[in-house]
Amino acid sequence: MIKRIMLGAVLLTSAGVLFTANAQQPPPTPEEQAATATATRQGLFKILGYNMGAIGGMARGTVPFDAAIAERNANRIALLAPMIPELLFANDTRAFDVTTEALPIIWDNKAEFEEKAANLIAAAETFAAVARGGDQAAITAAIRPFGATCGNCHETFRVD
Amino acid sequence: MIKRIMLGAVLLTSAGVLFTANAQQPPPTPEEQAATATATRQGLFKILGYNMGAIGGMARGTVPFDAAIAERNANRIALLAPMIPELLFANDTRAFDVTTEALPIIWDNKAEFEEKAANLIAAAETFAAVARGGDQAAITAAIRPFGATCGNCHETFRVD
Repeated sequence: MIKRIMLGAVLLTSAGVLFTANAQQPPPTPEEQAATATATRQGLFKILGYNMGAIGGMARGTVPFDAAIAERNANRIALLAPMIPELLFANDTRAFDVTTEALPIIWDNKAEFEEKAANLIAAAETFAAVARGGDQAAITAAIRPFGATCGNCHETFRVD
Repeated sequence: MIKRIMLGAVLLTSAGVLFTANAQQPPPTPEEQAATATATRQGLFKILGYNMGAIGGMARGTVPFDAAIAERNANRIALLAPMIPELLFANDTRAFDVTTEALPIIWDNKAEFEEKAANLIAAAETFAAVARGGDQAAITAAIRPFGATCGNCHETFRVD
């Protein structure tokens, strides 16, 4: 009984730390905010790449085809794709000393970036709809046009 | 016309690189795989923290309440939560020289980790359902029990 009560206290403390830490710490500096923003957007692309990688592996035959995983990953990608412009424009890191593959022209060409991102978001939705169909040939065929919308942005806005 | 054709070629090349790079490069070493796995799971927690942070800010009053953003972010968190055990057990990085906050006991206590993760996944679904309701007081009240399931894992399995 004592053990259960103590466990409860730990949980509350743990959750409490999560939601009071910011009130007790000084606000992050612009440099810290830029570093966090950079790490967050890089995290997004890692997660997108992880989910895309498995589907690409199925298309190449290096991973066994699994319709459920293809659908699951495509749904994740479609849900996360809107975070690309959201994160990039949440923090203009051009002026900060961050290690990044994001080219400064992203923030000089916001309209073009957003247009390419909108194309990618729409293509991710289309790809997810195909993946939900579960047909291996259709999914494999749909990867290339979707991947082109990724590459279209990388060509312009990412370090080569 | 020539410009359009060239653009098409660039797109194909770009997409082609995405899906043929692995075939042309040597397979990643176990060390490289461990580094990638570590970066991917850290990326996941960055994305979870980003989406949770905005909702926590609304609860604390540091960010204006926005029901649409709360719902959007809660849906993302619910969809991504299952990636926590998926990524942690996709690669046991204990033996590799990676900078990580993941304690080695994760892989010694897989059943306990998966149980805590299952609790978090269920709580994330519950929280997302509350967020879809759009009620500020209900969303704010639901954050703490959800956050407790995050903290419950951090207490045991993450570097303090």
